[in-house]
Amino acid sequence: MRKGGSAVIKFSGSLIYPPSASYLSELREAVKALLDEGWRIAVVVGGGEVAREYITTLRALGVPESLLDEIGIESANLNALSVALALYPLSPPTVPRDLREAVRISQEGLVPVLGGLQPGQSTNAVAAVLAEAIKADLLVNLLNGVDGVYTGRPGEPGSRKIDSLTYSQLEEIISGKEQVAGGYELFDRVALEIIKRSRLTLVFADGRNPAVLVKVIRGEGVGSWVRP
Amino acid sequence: MRKGGSAVIKFSGSLIYPPSASYLSELREAVKALLDEGWRIAVVVGGGEVAREYITTLRALGVPESLLDEIGIESANLNALSVALALYPLSPPTVPRDLREAVRISQEGLVPVLGGLQPGQSTNAVAAVLAEAIKADLLVNLLNGVDGVYTGRPGEPGSRKIDSLTYSQLEEIISGKEQVAGGYELFDRVALEIIKRSRLTLVFADGRNPAVLVKVIRGEGVGSWVRP
Amino acid sequence: MRKGGSAVIKFSGSLIYPPSASYLSELREAVKALLDEGWRIAVVVGGGEVAREYITTLRALGVPESLLDEIGIESANLNALSVALALYPLSPPTVPRDLREAVRISQEGLVPVLGGLQPGQSTNAVAAVLAEAIKADLLVNLLNGVDGVYTGRPGEPGSRKIDSLTYSQLEEIISGKEQVAGGYELFDRVALEIIKRSRLTLVFADGRNPAVLVKVIRGEGVGSWVRP
Amino acid sequence: MRKGGSAVIKFSGSLIYPPSASYLSELREAVKALLDEGWRIAVVVGGGEVAREYITTLRALGVPESLLDEIGIESANLNALSVALALYPLSPPTVPRDLREAVRISQEGLVPVLGGLQPGQSTNAVAAVLAEAIKADLLVNLLNGVDGVYTGRPGEPGSRKIDSLTYSQLEEIISGKEQVAGGYELFDRVALEIIKRSRLTLVFADGRNPAVLVKVIRGEGVGSWVRP
Amino acid sequence: MRKGGSAVIKFSGSLIYPPSASYLSELREAVKALLDEGWRIAVVVGGGEVAREYITTLRALGVPESLLDEIGIESANLNALSVALALYPLSPPTVPRDLREAVRISQEGLVPVLGGLQPGQSTNAVAAVLAEAIKADLLVNLLNGVDGVYTGRPGEPGSRKIDSLTYSQLEEIISGKEQVAGGYELFDRVALEIIKRSRLTLVFADGRNPAVLVKVIRGEGVGSWVRP
Amino acid sequence: MRKGGSAVIKFSGSLIYPPSASYLSELREAVKALLDEGWRIAVVVGGGEVAREYITTLRALGVPESLLDEIGIESANLNALSVALALYPLSPPTVPRDLREAVRISQEGLVPVLGGLQPGQSTNAVAAVLAEAIKADLLVNLLNGVDGVYTGRPGEPGSRKIDSLTYSQLEEIISGKEQVAGGYELFDRVALEIIKRSRLTLVFADGRNPAVLVKVIRGEGVGSWVRP
Repeated sequence: MRKGGSAVIKFSGSLIYPPSASYLSELREAVKALLDEGWRIAVVVGGGEVAREYITTLRALGVPESLLDEIGIESANLNALSVALALYPLSPPTVPRDLREAVRISQEGLVPVLGGLQPGQSTNAVAAVLAEAIKADLLVNLLNGVDGVYTGRPGEPGSRKIDSLTYSQLEEIISGKEQVAGGYELFDRVALEIIKRSRLTLVFADGRNPAVLVKVIRGEGVGSWVRP
Repeated sequence: MRKGGSAVIKFSGSLIYPPSASYLSELREAVKALLDEGWRIAVVVGGGEVAREYITTLRALGVPESLLDEIGIESANLNALSVALALYPLSPPTVPRDLREAVRISQEGLVPVLGGLQPGQSTNAVAAVLAEAIKADLLVNLLNGVDGVYTGRPGEPGSRKIDSLTYSQLEEIISGKEQVAGGYELFDRVALEIIKRSRLTLVFADGRNPAVLVKVIRGEGVGSWVRP
Repeated sequence: MRKGGSAVIKFSGSLIYPPSASYLSELREAVKALLDEGWRIAVVVGGGEVAREYITTLRALGVPESLLDEIGIESANLNALSVALALYPLSPPTVPRDLREAVRISQEGLVPVLGGLQPGQSTNAVAAVLAEAIKADLLVNLLNGVDGVYTGRPGEPGSRKIDSLTYSQLEEIISGKEQVAGGYELFDRVALEIIKRSRLTLVFADGRNPAVLVKVIRGEGVGSWVRP
Repeated sequence: MRKGGSAVIKFSGSLIYPPSASYLSELREAVKALLDEGWRIAVVVGGGEVAREYITTLRALGVPESLLDEIGIESANLNALSVALALYPLSPPTVPRDLREAVRISQEGLVPVLGGLQPGQSTNAVAAVLAEAIKADLLVNLLNGVDGVYTGRPGEPGSRKIDSLTYSQLEEIISGKEQVAGGYELFDRVALEIIKRSRLTLVFADGRNPAVLVKVIRGEGVGSWVRP
Repeated sequence: MRKGGSAVIKFSGSLIYPPSASYLSELREAVKALLDEGWRIAVVVGGGEVAREYITTLRALGVPESLLDEIGIESANLNALSVALALYPLSPPTVPRDLREAVRISQEGLVPVLGGLQPGQSTNAVAAVLAEAIKADLLVNLLNGVDGVYTGRPGEPGSRKIDSLTYSQLEEIISGKEQVAGGYELFDRVALEIIKRSRLTLVFADGRNPAVLVKVIRGEGVGSWVRP
Repeated sequence: MRKGGSAVIKFSGSLIYPPSASYLSELREAVKALLDEGWRIAVVVGGGEVAREYITTLRALGVPESLLDEIGIESANLNALSVALALYPLSPPTVPRDLREAVRISQEGLVPVLGGLQPGQSTNAVAAVLAEAIKADLLVNLLNGVDGVYTGRPGEPGSRKIDSLTYSQLEEIISGKEQVAGGYELFDRVALEIIKRSRLTLVFADGRNPAVLVKVIRGEGVGSWVRP
């Protein structure tokens, strides 16, 4: 069992909203357990359904895409604040607005919880730059109802989970996605470029059960692992 | 027809979320029309259903009330940002975090759109202090599906709309409300105290049709008017 | 003797200004003693005479009430900075401008010292939301020359101190106060609503001798205690 | 009569506190008159008696000088806010915390009102850097009860007012002042160095009557004028 | 000749540093001319040699890439401040740190000058989100010594300038670049994705002579034009 | 050997830029060694050649001196960020913009690294106010290639290093320097006034070898020591 490293955990927004007390409670227990084992943890939360509703509506009014991104950021920040409060006082009751503040929270021994930072940048990219900044041993990307990366569409016949893959394999799989506010999926190319430049370890796992989180971080063979 | 004064418009959060393109579009037309008539406009938007879901969940986890208020604030700010973007470039693409910034936006000839400011303070109170600060001629409180103040529960037999009432009458009607994060209704006592200390004119009207807004501000006899 | 809890201490501004070196020195000793006993302490300081002079003058010029509140906030912040410097390095040499920053200072093991936060909100309300946020065991309200809550005007014949009272009893006593910038007294209804929603313990005591502070927090039977 | 230039006006803190409604009212009229004549105006206000009381007390407790400067800054900012509110809406209801923000307020056509900026820097130095930044035609230094620079102590036998002097003459007069928090007088060497490096015109005049301000700026021969 | 639209101009950092008085002076004239013709202008400046020196050195010490990006941002901001001061008072003397502030400066009728915003994002991406936000008619990318996009390496035999190209053509040309702090060239994929999602017009031109800027914006057929 | 005190170390900007990996690496070792010995360390870094290039150019365009100071500040901040990243995680990856933030970083047990704060103030003055604020036992001023204060120009015949001198002696030596943006040398009068008011110990030493730093702080007789 690994101990004492550091990890960034990225939650799909749909895992957090609509909110569930039991989910957040288990999440708190999982984070507590990891901190007790000596892990340094940072969290990033995506936007989700709420953001998409606003964005679709405002796009119809002709609002520019980069300002729609601001809606995505605020929506992700609302999700993030909700997680920060569930973790409080392990986390501060606030969502950092830049990378430096996130790092300082981490330096104080607390768990920073971030949403988005700037237009044009996905929350996956935020998780990636944060993972770089705190020299994280791994970046865990928690999906909602999918337990890893698949050869095809998860659930389709013939599609099977890949336990271990290279950056290039992941790149091939995610190529062809469009970049529209609120529309980032699985993982985006920008985030992957960051993963690549710092040779980070990235794990995709199903986040519906927070206990999985502990397993992944302990290295207990769940999810899909992406390495150089 | 009145001209050239200033007004603060408070929207119930439920008027804004779930978002509707036609509603926001008509709202933009209404605001434009008022600005063209020489009115100075400021907007405050409440939180709503989304905030309530988060708050109920987090309260179950034992999160302190004043931190739940922060969720209410961020949720109201998300609604407010959505309105600001619908109004853009009549509004800046940002939601002020303090009263001074709101006033400066107004001084620049733009329409400030606010959500919440601080824990322990309702968005009605925010609208009231903003109305004071810009010396607003009236504070319009737009409700969702109720066209004014009623003697009893709106819709119940025997309950009838009051076209004009005094501060004391309103105070009597709202007395007995509890102050819980996300649970502010109609109008709260703190906000009323502010209305009273500055002898502001307060109007309640049904906000489901933005055209009503123009009527109210022009003084065309809709809604319930509260005066000293 | 109680140990290891947390308390918010609210000082009437008139206890701090005009400033006295011996008072601030004793205050520092009292806070040090409490920290050594394992208490977590946060401080809120009110405005006072200086604010009232500015506010009276500017009100005569027609300055809006909510902007006069800004004067009250800055004046309370000046008092607060003076207390923070007297406590330094137990406190940071700065006065937080929002609740989240205050909580973070507390999470770092330092004593946050606040003044006001937003127009329309008394420093008592600030103390109440801070007490909620840090889950304080008690909120101590230090008065200048009055040692608790009285049945009538303190000092008048027949008026006697009440050692223990309920929220409703306190509410009755403070009812009928006006809300004018710089004019908040004893305790205001907004602050009381917050006390009630979180069922906080509130103690009124005479703050002229900082040693009283230690007694109150140790539970040694001074002042008037307000509980559900 | 000169027209359409720009001027920075520095008020001694003792002109502003204790506050006087008639003084602030006349000041507003004077500023309005100058703006109407096409002048661009910026204001800086010093600290004063209140700051000195705090500083003397805290120095006795061993608080470091640069933190005492923070008290001087907040105190000057409180004076400045009071002037900004008296001028509102010619000024924003806020006191800028850095030079850039002050310049932006000026670029919007409003009158920035500043107090102090950083420890180790007098409000005279603030006025001087602001005068540089807005390319002010003159920096007017309003004293309380002294109508200019004197050969000796004003009021002493043989001491006479100097109508016009060079930088070197002023330097000689102010040499030998000590630099202690809250103890800056007439003008300090740092501020003078800034005046010199940009060859600014500096005028000392008695600020007890705001009408003097208009005279000085119009160039109607009052006060002491300092030039290269 | 086109009139009255809006444009974002992106300067390669090497055009600005080492600084040249004549270059900045001509640049100011060019911007003034465009503003006089009714254009709304915003500027973004890249980092450059200075950033690269710091980054190379710090990378050798093991500093994380996303923190090296912070060096790139500050270095670009220093270049941007230098341009802002050269344009002052057409620009404010400050460099916005987020997109919203940049938009507000533009709404005030001033020219915002930006450097970088967040780690993981190039200054080209900043220029692209800004172009979206102000609904710019075109985004001009000024290179140092290259007058457009070439089929091969500019200057090599057989390589020729392409006057007009599609997004896909540009994408093909820039594919295969690595994303390392300080190492963004010509244009990066993230920036291109933003261009694509909002169907912006992008022009590459040689920025060594600021007069070119006026020609490009007037549409006088210089540079390489990229359109859907 | 002294232990457990606190020191502010001021680096001439030319020691940091152009950057050298070996220098920054040795610097990190020196700081680590001092922290291990129980010293509390704070760092201030000056601007340098880069700032001077920008300033000279912009001065030729008529940019006001106080805005040129902003260039000096940003340039010093870039140097400071580079040192902060070299020290990271002993330092936060950020450069504080006011004294209070610097003190808070120090209170968290980290090493604050500052550049400039406000126009009209040298980085030497910043180092002096910071030394006051953290009650530093000594302020070490590291020069580039000069190992202390000399009777004449260092290196000239007859000029010899002074091992120990009084404030007055230093004042005499530095008198006559001009105050122009980017032109502060050895030590300026403002900074000296601050040294004097708090009776700080100031040491000048050659900073080209970071090991010297450890010697100076341990009191091992290098450099020139300035005391009351």
